[in-house]
Amino acid sequence: MTSQPGTSALARLDLTLDGGALTARLVDQPSVSGDEQELTDLVEQALRELPHLTVERFGNNVVARTELGRAERVVLAGHLDTVPIADNLPSRAEGDLLWGCGTSDMKSGVAVQLRLAATLPAPNRDLTFVFYDCEEVEASRNGLGRLAAAHPEWLKADFAVLMEPSGAMVEGGCQGTLRVKVRLTGVRAHAARSWLGDNAIHRAAEVLGRLAAYQPRTVLIDGLEYREGLNAVDIRGGVAGNVIPDECVVTVNFRYAPDRSPEQAEAHVREVFAGFPVEVTDSAPGALPGLDRPAARAFLAATGGQARAKFGWTDVARFSALGVPAVNYGPGDPNLAHKRDEHCSLSAIAECEQRLRDWLTGPVESNE
Amino acid sequence: MTSQPGTSALARLDLTLDGGALTARLVDQPSVSGDEQELTDLVEQALRELPHLTVERFGNNVVARTELGRAERVVLAGHLDTVPIADNLPSRAEGDLLWGCGTSDMKSGVAVQLRLAATLPAPNRDLTFVFYDCEEVEASRNGLGRLAAAHPEWLKADFAVLMEPSGAMVEGGCQGTLRVKVRLTGVRAHAARSWLGDNAIHRAAEVLGRLAAYQPRTVLIDGLEYREGLNAVDIRGGVAGNVIPDECVVTVNFRYAPDRSPEQAEAHVREVFAGFPVEVTDSAPGALPGLDRPAARAFLAATGGQARAKFGWTDVARFSALGVPAVNYGPGDPNLAHKRDEHCSLSAIAECEQRLRDWLTGPVESNE
Repeated sequence: MTSQPGTSALARLDLTLDGGALTARLVDQPSVSGDEQELTDLVEQALRELPHLTVERFGNNVVARTELGRAERVVLAGHLDTVPIADNLPSRAEGDLLWGCGTSDMKSGVAVQLRLAATLPAPNRDLTFVFYDCEEVEASRNGLGRLAAAHPEWLKADFAVLMEPSGAMVEGGCQGTLRVKVRLTGVRAHAARSWLGDNAIHRAAEVLGRLAAYQPRTVLIDGLEYREGLNAVDIRGGVAGNVIPDECVVTVNFRYAPDRSPEQAEAHVREVFAGFPVEVTDSAPGALPGLDRPAARAFLAATGGQARAKFGWTDVARFSALGVPAVNYGPGDPNLAHKRDEHCSLSAIAECEQRLRDWLTGPVESNE
Repeated sequence: MTSQPGTSALARLDLTLDGGALTARLVDQPSVSGDEQELTDLVEQALRELPHLTVERFGNNVVARTELGRAERVVLAGHLDTVPIADNLPSRAEGDLLWGCGTSDMKSGVAVQLRLAATLPAPNRDLTFVFYDCEEVEASRNGLGRLAAAHPEWLKADFAVLMEPSGAMVEGGCQGTLRVKVRLTGVRAHAARSWLGDNAIHRAAEVLGRLAAYQPRTVLIDGLEYREGLNAVDIRGGVAGNVIPDECVVTVNFRYAPDRSPEQAEAHVREVFAGFPVEVTDSAPGALPGLDRPAARAFLAATGGQARAKFGWTDVARFSALGVPAVNYGPGDPNLAHKRDEHCSLSAIAECEQRLRDWLTGPVESNE
């Protein structure tokens, strides 16, 4: 998918448009993962015209900051890329809805970021606006991850809001995820003389039994309820229809609340499968919601006071790894992300912008 | 693999050779499955020269019978084909051993058949010699199976000896085999929200638990000990590393003693897995050893009185399906079948021929 230079692609972004109109403008500038350069150029150009912001660029990632010496600094972050277009461009408005690729995930969030960047020259907290690429593809290409590795100082803050579609509900932190293989071994034999063998699949009975009997925790962290889960996600065993199998491998995924470290999560899984060989194949830490921080408490109040735990692993964990608690909060509808009929509510865009504006202009609670 | 016309291929078989020399002659006439025609022609030609035999041919299968009006009729059967040649032709004699493809499995047995056919014009029991093709390949091509379907009357008898390699030990009957799939179903969900799903792999815990706890029977039939076995031979489940799987399939193989019918075996397996859906994918009946028959008792006495149960499924079951009890008894070594270093003991060939000759010329026990 390529953008179309010579048409609207080269016209500058007009940040005086309202949030819905700006979202439509961003949506009509295609930016499928890997092809974000033109949109990034436009974003950078628009931000550099704002004298109250310091702008940095790294690849197709742009970071713009106020430098007001406020007691707190918060990040508003969003990715510029979309999944591949699915015959759903150009955008189309119909009543309160705006249709098109990226309307929910997450150009409506980016529009809100840009509106706030343009209209808040003197916010109550210092602001860092992060726009990044390649969120919709493999983790190694993720722009936020590459920024965090190359320029961690650009991302320093007390709190971060990732403007991913969250149905205008605050989603705090995220679970950690650990994947292990439990490998059962036995002795191969002809099925007609099974007593000469040792069936590795039968040995998996105990492993699956422990999984079936496992009682996952539910944990309250900063008022958010995290439900854990320990599940077999794969099992393979068998040589041929007439052979006693000598190997069976169970792959287990542990999704854990962010009060456990990856090391604690691994120790727990090893304890569950005591007596069996456990090999870790994949591990990503969770992220604490950080809703005990003053900036976060104020944010929560401004956005209606309601929050829920985030269950999937998201980029908030990248902030968490830098010591910055982070939440998801954006106007899009997460259930419509990546769908052909993706759309977004125009009034939700306006409401999201207003609530963030209230948070960033209201009184600031002193740090306790 | 093709045979070599123009060399020894066209020379007639000399049935006055001793068993070892005749085996070497047969081994040096290649007859890999599907390429048995020249050897079949030679066998048919040699048998037609024997005035005491009635010879029939069906494809590359030859059946030769005495028609003496004896009280009992016994079959001596053997397949003409071999597995592919593995740089182990021509045959080579060294001391008591004859090396080469097919020496054990089972041209030594065929040589004994041909020797007896040529030298027993007036046996104590009517004899049916069966030579068939394609035993070493898929069941649908098996010559004995096709003979049984097209000309079951050619195979009528009171008892059959299949001259497969058995280490000169009588191997009676064979186990039945039943294969079923036990399919566990659940509800797919994202692994981060596992409580929204229902893990099909965890449901397999109970199925594997029943298998691990299963106590197989050991059954004595006609003095032979049959050990049963119920085993998972395959297990597959899993969608992706972050998905609660909605299906897990366990494939189970039941090897059962021939006192159970296929229907009884299926009912037993369904009982073991009561509460789970069981789908039969494969079923082949066992074969009773029939060692209570007079011909069999005399055969056993003549061959040394020792017999053991046959565990793998073999062509004896094809005779059993026609109502003819059958055993394996042949001079080859079953552990050498299909191996590059396949060989056979020359003295075992002579001994096997002598024991069968004793059985077929000694006094006949009256039918009780």
